[in-house]
Amino acid sequence: MDQEKLLEELVHPADTKMILVVLDGLGGLPLPEREGKTELEAANKPNLDALARASELGLAHPVLPGITPGSSAGHLALFGYDPTKYVIGRGVLEALGIDFPLEPGDIAIRGNFATARFTPQGPIIVDRRAGRPSTEHTVAVCRRLQEEIRRIEDVEVFIRPVKEHRFVVVFRGSGLDPRVADTDPQEVGVPPLPPQPLAPEAEKTARLATIFLTRLAEVLREEPATNFALLRGFSQRPHLKLFGERFHLKAAAIALYPMYRGLAALVGMEVLQVKEESLASQLAVLRQSWPDYDFFFFHVKATDSRGEDGDWEGKIKVIEEFDRHLPQIMELKPDVLVITGDHSTPALYRAHSWHPVPYLLYSRWARYHRDTAGFGERDCARGALGHFPMLYNMNLMLAHAHRLVKFSA
Amino acid sequence: MDQEKLLEELVHPADTKMILVVLDGLGGLPLPEREGKTELEAANKPNLDALARASELGLAHPVLPGITPGSSAGHLALFGYDPTKYVIGRGVLEALGIDFPLEPGDIAIRGNFATARFTPQGPIIVDRRAGRPSTEHTVAVCRRLQEEIRRIEDVEVFIRPVKEHRFVVVFRGSGLDPRVADTDPQEVGVPPLPPQPLAPEAEKTARLATIFLTRLAEVLREEPATNFALLRGFSQRPHLKLFGERFHLKAAAIALYPMYRGLAALVGMEVLQVKEESLASQLAVLRQSWPDYDFFFFHVKATDSRGEDGDWEGKIKVIEEFDRHLPQIMELKPDVLVITGDHSTPALYRAHSWHPVPYLLYSRWARYHRDTAGFGERDCARGALGHFPMLYNMNLMLAHAHRLVKFSA
Repeated sequence: MDQEKLLEELVHPADTKMILVVLDGLGGLPLPEREGKTELEAANKPNLDALARASELGLAHPVLPGITPGSSAGHLALFGYDPTKYVIGRGVLEALGIDFPLEPGDIAIRGNFATARFTPQGPIIVDRRAGRPSTEHTVAVCRRLQEEIRRIEDVEVFIRPVKEHRFVVVFRGSGLDPRVADTDPQEVGVPPLPPQPLAPEAEKTARLATIFLTRLAEVLREEPATNFALLRGFSQRPHLKLFGERFHLKAAAIALYPMYRGLAALVGMEVLQVKEESLASQLAVLRQSWPDYDFFFFHVKATDSRGEDGDWEGKIKVIEEFDRHLPQIMELKPDVLVITGDHSTPALYRAHSWHPVPYLLYSRWARYHRDTAGFGERDCARGALGHFPMLYNMNLMLAHAHRLVKFSA
Repeated sequence: MDQEKLLEELVHPADTKMILVVLDGLGGLPLPEREGKTELEAANKPNLDALARASELGLAHPVLPGITPGSSAGHLALFGYDPTKYVIGRGVLEALGIDFPLEPGDIAIRGNFATARFTPQGPIIVDRRAGRPSTEHTVAVCRRLQEEIRRIEDVEVFIRPVKEHRFVVVFRGSGLDPRVADTDPQEVGVPPLPPQPLAPEAEKTARLATIFLTRLAEVLREEPATNFALLRGFSQRPHLKLFGERFHLKAAAIALYPMYRGLAALVGMEVLQVKEESLASQLAVLRQSWPDYDFFFFHVKATDSRGEDGDWEGKIKVIEEFDRHLPQIMELKPDVLVITGDHSTPALYRAHSWHPVPYLLYSRWARYHRDTAGFGERDCARGALGHFPMLYNMNLMLAHAHRLVKFSA
């Protein structure tokens, strides 16, 4: 039987509370500068280490061994959705990342401003990122475009800046289909690719994209650099059964970054407002809303950012900062607490990687190992949970929260 | 999504080089004579042990826990082909084992010379192996048969000796189908089974097999022992997407034994000529061809042979010999080096076994464990890779070689 269906059939309600802490990009690699310890192992984190000795540890694969997950794939697995089954397109992810209120059926497209040279035969791409304009410039350009392009045929068009050369286009209307090819030729000195329909149902969407690019070039014809655009990742919100309905949970997300708030909203979690960009502020929200929900997704971004910077000391510091705040979480006495990542971002590797993610599950029913040194990749590799697909995170959390009945007689 | 398809979609080219060393039948069992150490653990192998401390270790299941793989299943998994999906028939494997140039569509059949008593009701099998004739005798008998039987109907027939009572028959022509039942009754004193077609499309092949056996009995009617044959494993080359195309690799095989050369050829690897039957000669080929390929399959047979003999001291010596040659491999500075087996052949068990196979992956991005004692089953069981299906070997090698892009946004 399908794992997702099986799980849903076993779910039953209980009066228990769970917290899923995602330290983004948590997994690391041995650092020669730190005696072969990873970022997590090198961190001075007495609270996490003590918790590890009372918890089950393991290493989790967001997708499969060797496969490096994008952020959406990593989070889908954490939330109990098979990331190879539900793919979130780049356009949708980008729209989520700027808090754009995407409606079902909307086509979201990631745009990159580019520089083109216009010839009688059509445009030739000269710079695929338009010389990396400032975000301010892109904001201004998008405002002008939006004023000029509000509709194409019977379809509403939304144009929103993201960062530097990046922006989002959204088509809203009927008869739309996301199966349209990217227009980025991936090299310069050549024409852009046409927005080719990949299915007959996508002809209208492709036509709108062609008209959009023509009108964009007209509006921007006086711009020295940002005079054209490349379109990628035509996509729609995937059809996802809602998290709360699947697991009979009232779920809330406490995340600072739009993309993660967007992913939580996509599965139907309530996204709580956080006043300041700080762990303390996130924890204040957790405390205040503690009586109102039974599942909390608590997202910390900086582990990943420091990892991508190659800044292992910085990543270690983020882990140490989280450790100092951990007692505030423990004071709430959650029935189940998971601390893990959505993928690894080893500071040595400076990018998302395929290495499995350290995973800690604390509950009254944890099969802990007394000789655990602490929370680290090596103890996780030898932990009670072994290596497992992250898709089973919800199985484990629900089981420890007494929210699953016995399977079969 | 299907793992094989997913992997192929993520592959992208890179300028990195990989070596897959297969020490055939590497896995062992604790030897009471060696203080409970396995063959691998008992071997004096300083180079492998030092490498293990800089590598990721794990235990790999070629098929599934408890399932003992044949050599072809073990190698298919190593090469990234699901061994439960692509089955290589006994006839094909036997043909590969004698370097027979099998063409697509050929029907390969494993033959066993047998002794029959001919009665008015037909033959009765008296000895299923014809008293185990010498290989020389079988060579001579096959030559006579081939002279007399060159065609049956419109189909070419090839008859080739293997070893002792074993030979191979190949049918080449149109309208052939391998779904024909074995004729071996598995006991003596009874008639052979007819080569029954198991599908209407296989009626011609079954008829040819019947005629072949009749003509064989005529040709060999004066032979005292090798006067009949039993046919098994009717099979065709499976349709396999080529390794090089799937993974964008230029791949070469350095193997001494025909069957392994044949398996490598089956997936489209280039099979390099090795002058002498020695590790030194194999290594010379590796060095010479190093600039020309980016993936090398390097096969060492003797670990398996000594295991099957029950000769644990011999198997230990083979591992120690490989260890002395390991620095020559390291000098080439491969980006990724995997050292593993295609299955376990514990010397105590004297046969292929189901025990998972020790697996070592060395790369710049290895999540090594500093406290690793060396390359052995116990360290592998606690290693960074845990227990995993050998099918993921290619995922891991490609990931560490920077040849996979991120999955999803």
